[in-house]
Amino acid sequence: MTSGFAFCVHDQDSQSAARRSTLTTPHGDVEMPAFMPVGTQGAVKGVTADHVVATGAQMVLSNAYHLAVRPGAEIVRRLGGLHHFMGWSGPILTDSGGFQVFSLQRLTKVTDEGVEFRSHVDGAKISLTPERAVQIQGDLGSDIAMVLDHVVSLPNSRDVIEDACRRSIRWAQRSLATSRSDQQALFGIVQGGLDQPLRIESAEALAELDFDGYAIGGLSVGESAEDMLRTIEFTIPALPAGKPRYLMGVGRPEDILEAVARGIDLFDCVMPTRNGRNAMAFTDSGTLRLRNERHREDTRPLEETCDCLACRHSRGYLRHLFMSGEMLGPILLSIHNLTYYQRLLQTARTAIKDGRFVEFKQQMFQGWTGTAAAG
Amino acid sequence: MTSGFAFCVHDQDSQSAARRSTLTTPHGDVEMPAFMPVGTQGAVKGVTADHVVATGAQMVLSNAYHLAVRPGAEIVRRLGGLHHFMGWSGPILTDSGGFQVFSLQRLTKVTDEGVEFRSHVDGAKISLTPERAVQIQGDLGSDIAMVLDHVVSLPNSRDVIEDACRRSIRWAQRSLATSRSDQQALFGIVQGGLDQPLRIESAEALAELDFDGYAIGGLSVGESAEDMLRTIEFTIPALPAGKPRYLMGVGRPEDILEAVARGIDLFDCVMPTRNGRNAMAFTDSGTLRLRNERHREDTRPLEETCDCLACRHSRGYLRHLFMSGEMLGPILLSIHNLTYYQRLLQTARTAIKDGRFVEFKQQMFQGWTGTAAAG
Repeated sequence: MTSGFAFCVHDQDSQSAARRSTLTTPHGDVEMPAFMPVGTQGAVKGVTADHVVATGAQMVLSNAYHLAVRPGAEIVRRLGGLHHFMGWSGPILTDSGGFQVFSLQRLTKVTDEGVEFRSHVDGAKISLTPERAVQIQGDLGSDIAMVLDHVVSLPNSRDVIEDACRRSIRWAQRSLATSRSDQQALFGIVQGGLDQPLRIESAEALAELDFDGYAIGGLSVGESAEDMLRTIEFTIPALPAGKPRYLMGVGRPEDILEAVARGIDLFDCVMPTRNGRNAMAFTDSGTLRLRNERHREDTRPLEETCDCLACRHSRGYLRHLFMSGEMLGPILLSIHNLTYYQRLLQTARTAIKDGRFVEFKQQMFQGWTGTAAAG
Repeated sequence: MTSGFAFCVHDQDSQSAARRSTLTTPHGDVEMPAFMPVGTQGAVKGVTADHVVATGAQMVLSNAYHLAVRPGAEIVRRLGGLHHFMGWSGPILTDSGGFQVFSLQRLTKVTDEGVEFRSHVDGAKISLTPERAVQIQGDLGSDIAMVLDHVVSLPNSRDVIEDACRRSIRWAQRSLATSRSDQQALFGIVQGGLDQPLRIESAEALAELDFDGYAIGGLSVGESAEDMLRTIEFTIPALPAGKPRYLMGVGRPEDILEAVARGIDLFDCVMPTRNGRNAMAFTDSGTLRLRNERHREDTRPLEETCDCLACRHSRGYLRHLFMSGEMLGPILLSIHNLTYYQRLLQTARTAIKDGRFVEFKQQMFQGWTGTAAAG
């Protein structure tokens, strides 16, 4: 591993591929399986850094594409680097921007050299190469940088998926050749859609390059949950067991537990904050929609056992905030949902340690849906 | 005073009418002169209750009109009362809604009995009487209730001002006759526009009624700062020295210090949060507009000596949040401005105690404007 980093697996579940581990970074340890709150533009939407810490989060994600477009990576560097900029003293992972470049539909040209696209802010033409993506993340000073990858939407033709997958491998090689920092880890990203041979080809090629960690990218882009989980299942055996495995952009609590069961160590998703802003709260009994009339006089907190700031209030109060258009509603529900996700992962880690992860997962599914987990 | 309340003046400035005092309430003490953050709808806009506490605020203001319209005072009561509802364990003052009924321009009829208006939420016709305003605030369970008053805009004809002023006196008598709680203080509100005889008539009539405190209402509604200060000057001598004096809805930091110099003990204003949401920060060197290009690479905090959450970041970061449309910008600037106001009042109290308030006020004006205070 890159200097300043270590990865140690503590427990391997006997009934599933779930494992408990610690990733050591220059800015502290991350207990895994872990969930990263998303701070795309250098801010977790609606939540101050002290409140993000209070949710239990140890590492946050930010986005090199967004910060490079605005305010500019060089400006973040001059303002003290991303940790100081955000006021976050723990580990930070930056996504390269591959997903954003392709998903924001502002792409103008993809060649083997790199991509050209138009800024979502001012329409200016910007080029991004694998080397430039590494350089931007060096300026930002994140603990973990991600390689630039070519992401395609699903479903898509095998030719398109294969072309993007092989380009992503070539770009990964160039990214690694450029990366020179001994304080910034670099993760490769496996592509290949839902195609087993392509995913394995991608995973094996990246494994040979000896990255500090491996992400599974290009999922949660329109495919079914079953297809996603099947893809994880056949991809993971091709990845080195001694490196962290990161499932990008996933997902719902149930997706996370199913992915943990298949050996994933790290997650990020906008769902806790985005759904929180839209008045949706996660609980062990399923989701609550706070605008619903039935919460009007409900004196209960969202979750009896939750100690977050939102759960100091009644559901009736939280509903009132949303009905009155008060910013505090989105703020408090974002805090609750982030706390919920952290508690879910914390409880999952304990269950793995105690050898009862599969049982725990089934209990959670019963609470969420009233039925036992599929597997 | 009402049971559970006490008011004690500790220091009287020798060069001005400024004084330092403590108001004791059932939910704790308020060191005065004091500034109350505004939580109109039961929430200080964009700021969680723990962060409001961290600004140093001891008492917050909420609004009976808004809460009666939505979610309803009875519902707040069933949800545990306003303190539990908001998650605020300190003192709360509720405005009656007089100002809102008249300023939201939804008034349909004013008689001696009361007012009829249309809800700003659903257009429903609502009647409010002095007795009903007291009852609503009883349901809310605030520490300090305000009488319903008839507020008119300025400038206006003497007849209109006189009519509203005398009606406010009659309403104040009825409010007091209705108030039965021994855990809720009731403050009268002096009206009378900028007219000296009317203001004195109003103040003397209310003084005879022996309220727990006295507000000066109907100011900061379009008149000049000079007219406002002159009105305070001739009104205060007609109020009892042994009761707290509250200047409603004021104001800018300079207005507050000038009013303290004239004997005001209590303030509220939406300015710290509203201006914060609009990217304006208060500092000892004047106001900063964070969207300004000049802050782009500025590594300094808003104020070197401020320990608020916003001041853990650079001006460049705060500007980035506003330019990127991140909610965190309004949140952090609201916290900074509320902290600024609390520090201003804290420093004013210390200056009064140390017998150097006028000197302190002049120094502050020099910092804000580059010139000495007018007086």
